[in-house]
Amino acid sequence: MRCMISSCYQQLLIFGMVLAAGGILSCSAPEETTPEPPIAIAIHGGAGTMRRESMTAEQEEAYRSKLTEALTLGYEILKNGGGSLDAVEQVIILLEDSPLFNAGRGAVFTNAGTVELDASIMDGKTLQAGAAAAVKHVKNPISLARLVMEKSPHVMLAGEGAEAFAREQGMEPVPNEYFHTDRRREELQRQQSREQERQKSSQFPTLQSGSEGNNSRQYGTVGVAALDRSGNLAAGTSTGGRTNKRWGRVGDSPIIGAGTYADNRTCAVSATGHGEYFMRLVVAHRISALMAYRNLSVNEAAEQAIRELGELGGDGGVIAVDQNGNIAMPFNTAGMYRGYVDSDGELWVGIFRE
Amino acid sequence: MRCMISSCYQQLLIFGMVLAAGGILSCSAPEETTPEPPIAIAIHGGAGTMRRESMTAEQEEAYRSKLTEALTLGYEILKNGGGSLDAVEQVIILLEDSPLFNAGRGAVFTNAGTVELDASIMDGKTLQAGAAAAVKHVKNPISLARLVMEKSPHVMLAGEGAEAFAREQGMEPVPNEYFHTDRRREELQRQQSREQERQKSSQFPTLQSGSEGNNSRQYGTVGVAALDRSGNLAAGTSTGGRTNKRWGRVGDSPIIGAGTYADNRTCAVSATGHGEYFMRLVVAHRISALMAYRNLSVNEAAEQAIRELGELGGDGGVIAVDQNGNIAMPFNTAGMYRGYVDSDGELWVGIFRE
Repeated sequence: MRCMISSCYQQLLIFGMVLAAGGILSCSAPEETTPEPPIAIAIHGGAGTMRRESMTAEQEEAYRSKLTEALTLGYEILKNGGGSLDAVEQVIILLEDSPLFNAGRGAVFTNAGTVELDASIMDGKTLQAGAAAAVKHVKNPISLARLVMEKSPHVMLAGEGAEAFAREQGMEPVPNEYFHTDRRREELQRQQSREQERQKSSQFPTLQSGSEGNNSRQYGTVGVAALDRSGNLAAGTSTGGRTNKRWGRVGDSPIIGAGTYADNRTCAVSATGHGEYFMRLVVAHRISALMAYRNLSVNEAAEQAIRELGELGGDGGVIAVDQNGNIAMPFNTAGMYRGYVDSDGELWVGIFRE
Repeated sequence: MRCMISSCYQQLLIFGMVLAAGGILSCSAPEETTPEPPIAIAIHGGAGTMRRESMTAEQEEAYRSKLTEALTLGYEILKNGGGSLDAVEQVIILLEDSPLFNAGRGAVFTNAGTVELDASIMDGKTLQAGAAAAVKHVKNPISLARLVMEKSPHVMLAGEGAEAFAREQGMEPVPNEYFHTDRRREELQRQQSREQERQKSSQFPTLQSGSEGNNSRQYGTVGVAALDRSGNLAAGTSTGGRTNKRWGRVGDSPIIGAGTYADNRTCAVSATGHGEYFMRLVVAHRISALMAYRNLSVNEAAEQAIRELGELGGDGGVIAVDQNGNIAMPFNTAGMYRGYVDSDGELWVGIFRE
């Protein structure tokens, strides 16, 4: 018995010495022993029917390369102590400026042959949010969304009023032609021909029941969800909406709760897909609520929301990041342009189911 | 012991006879013994700082009388087997047509001296939804929201595009002056004078932090939530937004999830108040999610959402009806124009905390 106690004392002594040594070490080189809080970023460039066989190696490489560039930019901001809102805004600007995606330059055309852009952003720390809908002369709608959040008393501004606010805030307007690309103009023409064919054969435009032939569609919306060193989550989404849209249609991207949501207590989410279904299910907030109220993980919550989306007849996907840097990217389409840098610093990009 | 058993047999015998008699009765007169499924309706006409002492008896009577008329209309539709969507639409039309509320005729003025209207409607059975934002020539925006839901593939249409869709659907446009009232014009002038005063004293317009002096405000948005005999829930909301609004501001009323939500599995909700806060918290969907994922009652869920609203700095209220006809009407303002007919057929209207 005495032996055992003696042994205990010996162990305590050794333990104490180790603690002391650890204390000295951590004083001299704290960065080696205190793990830094996690950072993480996930992005998407739209979901849809993209198939490996219908994409050239060059096209695929262009997307993978741009997604990698975007992730690298966002991760560098976070790694250098930047805020998640800055990472979200800067990465989306890069994607808006690229003609590859349906956001900013290279966005799809409306029925009237113009480009009308929507974007939103949300700060998970304060639950402040900003959105801009149906703007035609704002080069980077995500930056306007952030200005709406930070410099107006409002959450959502639309149309010419939003343009006026942008000018008041010093944003230089661009002509609508800045956004135009031949590729998207051809898409509009194909879409309009298809609609004329449908009308001739009396198959009239359809309701929200999902019979609109979604399977032939691609959604090129872009979005980012990020976690910074301070534990703050943020999310943002930017889009040109749907090819041939009319009647001032507003989709889910500028709707807080539908296309974008962020709450430090749960997660940051950005969605892409058939927006009407995301609006009816309030998908981004649904994921947050499943985590808050049913204690699901970010992956379980995002999977469940996409399952419900499919049951209602909708298609698309989401990216989501939680407070610990866990990442979910479920989608029910053939593919989704997507990628992440996780809390271990590992970068990954994908397009198809891979 | 034998006596007790004998007594049990006697009771069983009597019970059996009662059951048999009940069977005969229910065969001969089923409508007297099978309780009909519950119906219920709740309405609001806005929340705010209304105080008994600053309202004349005539004003108070006008509101109580119009709320009673609206409830009676909605309850009659439901009692006669009408659908909850019809009850919601018809009651909101009545409130839009009344100059007492900030919706349709009598809505508030924008900074530009025009009236711009928003509305949304949702069907709890199908989760189909429709919304119209920033329309200036549609007499009854709630009917346009319903047409968007039923006759377009979209959930939300905004601005001139929404007006074009309304005309295509055969809605006769009205001049914007149809909506104008002297009372609201005076409110605009007072509001603009106050803003000029604030700017002179360098208290600049504020952010979403709630320092905008909400307590001096009234929100006259109207909304209805209803349950019909088939067990279908529906909700709708209609508003002129905020006095002196600018930059194409869109509030919570046309946002599915924020100002309006309905899901047969949970509840139907319509909100009124400082819209930006309702958008950031996605209040209507939050109530539905608290019921679905945390098994709260409609009253507990609505109370919790309004508590969270207050914690964020927002003010307003909601009405909510669940599948069993239970009704919740919490608000954190001094008053809320509101009323219900519950599943017992009891009608009640209120304005202040009473």
